Amino acid sequence: MTTGVRRRMGVEERRQQLIGVALELFSHRSPDEVSIDEIAAAAGISRPLVYHYFPGKQSLYEAALRRAADELAGRFLEPPEGPLGARLLRVMGRFFDFVDDHGPGFSALMRGGPAVGSSRANALIDEVRQAAYEQILAHLRIETPSARLQLVVRSWVSLAESTALIWLDGRRIPRGELELQLVHDFAALCAVSAAYDEEMAGVLLRILADEPAEGPFGDLVGRLMSLAPAVAAVPAQRLR
Amino acid sequence: MTTGVRRRMGVEERRQQLIGVALELFSHRSPDEVSIDEIAAAAGISRPLVYHYFPGKQSLYEAALRRAADELAGRFLEPPEGPLGARLLRVMGRFFDFVDDHGPGFSALMRGGPAVGSSRANALIDEVRQAAYEQILAHLRIETPSARLQLVVRSWVSLAESTALIWLDGRRIPRGELELQLVHDFAALCAVSAAYDEEMAGVLLRILADEPAEGPFGDLVGRLMSLAPAVAAVPAQRLR
Repeated sequence: MTTGVRRRMGVEERRQQLIGVALELFSHRSPDEVSIDEIAAAAGISRPLVYHYFPGKQSLYEAALRRAADELAGRFLEPPEGPLGARLLRVMGRFFDFVDDHGPGFSALMRGGPAVGSSRANALIDEVRQAAYEQILAHLRIETPSARLQLVVRSWVSLAESTALIWLDGRRIPRGELELQLVHDFAALCAVSAAYDEEMAGVLLRILADEPAEGPFGDLVGRLMSLAPAVAAVPAQRLR
Repeated sequence: MTTGVRRRMGVEERRQQLIGVALELFSHRSPDEVSIDEIAAAAGISRPLVYHYFPGKQSLYEAALRRAADELAGRFLEPPEGPLGARLLRVMGRFFDFVDDHGPGFSALMRGGPAVGSSRANALIDEVRQAAYEQILAHLRIETPSARLQLVVRSWVSLAESTALIWLDGRRIPRGELELQLVHDFAALCAVSAAYDEEMAGVLLRILADEPAEGPFGDLVGRLMSLAPAVAAVPAQRLR
């Protein structure tokens, strides 16, 4: 019995539409700057009707955040096939797609603020971090990670966040370069940990054993080796 | 005209005392869990009197945060003498002293939450990050950093934050190890950036030129070089 375009939506369908409209607005401006009036106007319904579906601004924000968090966590899903470096590079590509599409919303989310700085918002962000962390460990095929490996993976996830936030502030470095750089940063953080810890050295060598020379890790090792004589010369000189 | 111990304090002196008491309580429990009643009791004054000096809980929290932020920013001050690696290691030592002394307060501050997740709190955190960033650039003696160097320094500051937060969650790795690791991480992030960027390669080589073999950077290079044959063998084998 729908009559034309403006057919009646079901409750869940309308809720999903409003979440989508909110997320679309948050990709251009911070959630703090987007009013319920604007969301209502963009959805083509009245302000009171928005409150019929979401009891308050905060509940609509949190629902939008919930969907964004699920989507972001989904970007870290990657089939466990092929060398790790190439997998991570694809994951970083999808992560930056998300960051690119949802710039102001992503910044507001990660930096906190009146609309998103609630403890529920923080819990959602932690869920995404945890999902990313678990994905990386699954790719490493390690079920009981040591404290040092946990630290490397968690701190790399945080590095990906901060690199994306810094990139959004002016976009002065091509994003493709940063996607590759973050894959290299992962190897670099592993290498630093491996320099002092045998277990981490084992993890690093196992990762590299699967890497093709033309993959992102092989490429980095090659480039660093070409810098290495100059680097190695410095402390060696001092040793004499 | 003071009579014994319980002499009257001036307004500013009393404010400073309350801030100190609050910070002391926040070093054991999250600010969200500390009530004005407890702060009043610990300061030996009545609850209404606390409100005489601070109009609300939030204003006392923000004043405490202001002092903590100043103190934390001060930890990054280091005389511009000697090799960079040793300077950074001393800075990291003082940074972890702060984190160690103010554990729950530091976690709450960095992770946001009802008491600290305000936009003023976020602005204070950004001030500390900016102070740390400027200190590192000053040590590198670079006044107009390229976008890539800015990214390396800013993302390293963020890595120090996240490493400290992860450490606080269980303290499963000796903090001295993490202080050294963060100094190495700085070199590693520089090296990754240097692998693809000539200007960054120049920065890296200039840093390393001043480093003694027995300093933290020299030590890392030595250890990585000893891992390098195994690492280099992997992609080289594939190239054939």
